[in-house]
Amino acid sequence: MLKQPLILITNDDGLGAQGISVLTRCMLKLGQVIVVAPNGARSGASCSITPIVPVRLKLERQEQNLRVYSCTGTPADCVKLALEKVVPRQPDLVVSGINHGDNASCSVHYSGTMGAVIEGCMKGVPSIGYSLRTRKQECDFRPYLDAVEKVAAHVLKNGLPEDVCLNVNFPEVPALKGVSVCRMARGVWQSEWKETETPDVYALTGHYTNLEPDAEDTDYWALDHGMASVTPLCLDMTYRPYFKNLESLQK
Amino acid sequence: MLKQPLILITNDDGLGAQGISVLTRCMLKLGQVIVVAPNGARSGASCSITPIVPVRLKLERQEQNLRVYSCTGTPADCVKLALEKVVPRQPDLVVSGINHGDNASCSVHYSGTMGAVIEGCMKGVPSIGYSLRTRKQECDFRPYLDAVEKVAAHVLKNGLPEDVCLNVNFPEVPALKGVSVCRMARGVWQSEWKETETPDVYALTGHYTNLEPDAEDTDYWALDHGMASVTPLCLDMTYRPYFKNLESLQK
Repeated sequence: MLKQPLILITNDDGLGAQGISVLTRCMLKLGQVIVVAPNGARSGASCSITPIVPVRLKLERQEQNLRVYSCTGTPADCVKLALEKVVPRQPDLVVSGINHGDNASCSVHYSGTMGAVIEGCMKGVPSIGYSLRTRKQECDFRPYLDAVEKVAAHVLKNGLPEDVCLNVNFPEVPALKGVSVCRMARGVWQSEWKETETPDVYALTGHYTNLEPDAEDTDYWALDHGMASVTPLCLDMTYRPYFKNLESLQK
Repeated sequence: MLKQPLILITNDDGLGAQGISVLTRCMLKLGQVIVVAPNGARSGASCSITPIVPVRLKLERQEQNLRVYSCTGTPADCVKLALEKVVPRQPDLVVSGINHGDNASCSVHYSGTMGAVIEGCMKGVPSIGYSLRTRKQECDFRPYLDAVEKVAAHVLKNGLPEDVCLNVNFPEVPALKGVSVCRMARGVWQSEWKETETPDVYALTGHYTNLEPDAEDTDYWALDHGMASVTPLCLDMTYRPYFKNLESLQK
């Protein structure tokens, strides 16, 4: 009998979110699943870790082919802890999500969903983040399940290059118009601080501005046009074309 | 009279750290300085933001050419808040650090120092992170001050390409052996969790393993050989060479 794939799941909305429950059911079609997810919301956690306070791991439930743990740390902590203290062997796949809210364009840098994916990738496991462009806590995830499974099956079969992970985003539509393999759009968050009743105390908010709304090869364009975006991301951020402009610093 | 450059400073060790005090004195030689830094340690904060709890800004002191604020948020929050609510105009430079501990190789992804730099870069300001490979809270920063100033002056004069920032790291040496413009080394953190007295509660620790110790074009090699590393980083993490391998997902 062939060995079943082992799939590690986490997210940044916490174990109680609908998105991770949907993702877990979907991944159980592909293999054995271990969930290690935050015990509450960690939106905006990026790839942050918890170096000062110890982190608690708790087995929440165990079923056929499924073990579910909560963790008091960040999404990246969850992946670190799962890989070192929970899994019986190196997983074949790390998946994170399905996030409530997209993580396209520059939002990759703030995303706890993608922080967990970056952590899985750093540890040598093929890793995928899934996010849905929505503001709702309760969503209809059915339009995306085929694409979620197809991308995961592709990665289980083909792997990913070293230091490369996938960022998958869905628009909120009744039926996907397609899948676009595309780059991160250039964009920026603006008007980010709302004054509160207390002077000098501000609440984070803001709106995203796409700096290249007409670029058809971007994740934002895909989402704006009813398509899922699939973007391969490289952990080596080195920008080699600028080396020559810095040469004078070496003298 | 020529307008003085305006320089925004932050860090992730907090306003009380020696590194940011040294960096502030150094930058005052180059222009007018505004410091907006966390009110305590935020090591490992990555590019995380604070979406749930409001953030407080406090003017700590004001001198000739210098204003210093503390902030209860993350390093990225500090930059966001400074740019929207504190600075009189778009700064000419954002600098972060000098971090106590290096942020070379994959540590870029965990680093609050570099999270602030990424935030400054996203907002269109040329941005530099400085870090020192040390475990000490009190260090002799004098061997690095010339290089700190030289890199900042280079960026003030020449700017940086859109979406590109700099990661500068120093080894702990009596005198730098040079400056290397180089790429991120491939590496990984291992053995990251120490058991505590409480079952299922773990404390984050670990050691870094350089996966390519002989690669002379990397930041780790430079640090290991007594040199400062200067690495240009690109915020667009898209890995275009893998697009063709994902084409079948579009069908």
